[in-house]
Amino acid sequence: MKIIRNGRRRDMKSIWYDRGLKLIDQTLLPEKLLVKRLDDERGVAEAIRSMRVRGAPAIGVAGAYGVAIAAKKGRARSAARLLKAARPTAVDLKNCVDEVLGEKSARSMMGKADEICERVVGACKKIGEDGEKLIGKQARILTHCNAGALATVDWGTALAPIRVAQRKGKKPFVFVDETRPRLQGALTSWELLNEGIRHRVIVDNARGYFMRRGEIDSVIVGADRVVVNEGCIVNKIGTYGAAVIAKENNIPFYVAAPLTTFDWTSGKSDVKIEERSEREVLGIDVNGRGFPKKAKAFNPAFDITPAKYITRIICEKGVYKPEDLRMILSD
Amino acid sequence: MKIIRNGRRRDMKSIWYDRGLKLIDQTLLPEKLLVKRLDDERGVAEAIRSMRVRGAPAIGVAGAYGVAIAAKKGRARSAARLLKAARPTAVDLKNCVDEVLGEKSARSMMGKADEICERVVGACKKIGEDGEKLIGKQARILTHCNAGALATVDWGTALAPIRVAQRKGKKPFVFVDETRPRLQGALTSWELLNEGIRHRVIVDNARGYFMRRGEIDSVIVGADRVVVNEGCIVNKIGTYGAAVIAKENNIPFYVAAPLTTFDWTSGKSDVKIEERSEREVLGIDVNGRGFPKKAKAFNPAFDITPAKYITRIICEKGVYKPEDLRMILSD
Repeated sequence: MKIIRNGRRRDMKSIWYDRGLKLIDQTLLPEKLLVKRLDDERGVAEAIRSMRVRGAPAIGVAGAYGVAIAAKKGRARSAARLLKAARPTAVDLKNCVDEVLGEKSARSMMGKADEICERVVGACKKIGEDGEKLIGKQARILTHCNAGALATVDWGTALAPIRVAQRKGKKPFVFVDETRPRLQGALTSWELLNEGIRHRVIVDNARGYFMRRGEIDSVIVGADRVVVNEGCIVNKIGTYGAAVIAKENNIPFYVAAPLTTFDWTSGKSDVKIEERSEREVLGIDVNGRGFPKKAKAFNPAFDITPAKYITRIICEKGVYKPEDLRMILSD
Repeated sequence: MKIIRNGRRRDMKSIWYDRGLKLIDQTLLPEKLLVKRLDDERGVAEAIRSMRVRGAPAIGVAGAYGVAIAAKKGRARSAARLLKAARPTAVDLKNCVDEVLGEKSARSMMGKADEICERVVGACKKIGEDGEKLIGKQARILTHCNAGALATVDWGTALAPIRVAQRKGKKPFVFVDETRPRLQGALTSWELLNEGIRHRVIVDNARGYFMRRGEIDSVIVGADRVVVNEGCIVNKIGTYGAAVIAKENNIPFYVAAPLTTFDWTSGKSDVKIEERSEREVLGIDVNGRGFPKKAKAFNPAFDITPAKYITRIICEKGVYKPEDLRMILSD
């Protein structure tokens, strides 16, 4: 991704290995760009739990390196358990950790982590190239949460087709859902500002208003888990609502996700939805207003969007209807 | 409404006349309960624009008193223009200002403002009594924005049936949408805490999650305008989305609004949707995170919910299907 730093635009990844796992601390963005170095699996697990690194593919890569780092000290197996528990809903984390754990030596584990990292970048680039074909000139696209380069090492999932469209001169315009409670829309806006892509932030409540007025041509989101058996996806809370309103207004709803995000075995009823601290909801100040001190909140972090609301799923193997995902295995 | 102040629960209205227009400054709630006194129409117009007083029925009453106060100084007509321009979408303001302006003397104008105020309180009480019949024991109800006593002098519109249900021992449970951008859910939570009604705050994104899981039995909202010709309503941004998701999940969607909110002449295409400052969206801090300084936003304040998503409209004349509203005239 492009990042403007000290007045100069340069290329940067959100996560990489260089004598320790290095990653952009996303809890400090967009206010401050700081690269954090993590030297053991505890640090990686903490970074995942506290969302210093977030986005299903990025936490998969972080988990992979976490196991590889621990393997040098003979702790690969316990590290894998610790890391997988850090965020239960995203399936990349489990998939990537298990893949590294399948290697025999510490050295081959590190090689596997590097391979996974490169594979994720390649998958996202391919998603960008295939997904770009679904975007018209001057298309007006709604996205939810941050499924950008921050969430995926580079390129992004939902943002990859938009990045490619911009580089091809299509001038997309992005409606950026703010994505309460954690305001990941701020990360998306930061990425788009860095890339010079036109956009406006809207509150999550406003998406229906713009859809109904015909001002949104398509919706593109990422996924924390693609449940292949059901063709449904698990993604940031609010995705389901966006999909229902899009369908009601005949607006195509696309999901962009690499194969690391695919869950080939579960049904949707097996998926555990993470509930996070109510402070994420109540710890808000809007121009001086907050909630009463005695207020309490519910805070589910994800919801499930059934197949019938999803127009196409874009992965590195191509563009599929949700019911055709199993065909990937035989391709 | 009940308010706990200095440890004691007492009755209080959100707006009343006592040598000047007095009202609870809603911009300071829930942090601080402060009563503001306004002595001229400029003060009233400022209070409406800045949302010190908000909620369609409450600003209608404030506008009525604003004209009556100005009439004493011979400025009723110019005051009416100033006040009606303060918030263009809510129709109560226009209706109430015009009704006071129809009187001949300053004294009769003040009498009319008092009458409107009492009528609004009576209408809301009746809405509470009729609407309560739609609420089962231990019903789990979603509401959006604040359609409570703060918005309506007393009782509320959407909250009136819930208040009555609570007093009858039905123990309702309320899902309080936080209602970005301005967080009026904080006002609803404050009212419910004062009344001892069980509730939890959720982000607007989470409503679909709870609806789909069957954890919400009905939705009740207020309205800034009921467009009788179309059977549609204009209400706080996000209402349309809530209605679409409710319909998709076969959950009844109720609108509670007094007749002062009814627009008997317009079609929905005539309704001007107010756009407010982007600072309402961007001036947010969530546990230290905000938007990039260069980010821009769109901020439409209201949306339109068509009749097909509305199960019933509750007003002081009874409970109606949207297409039957015209029958009120002949009743």
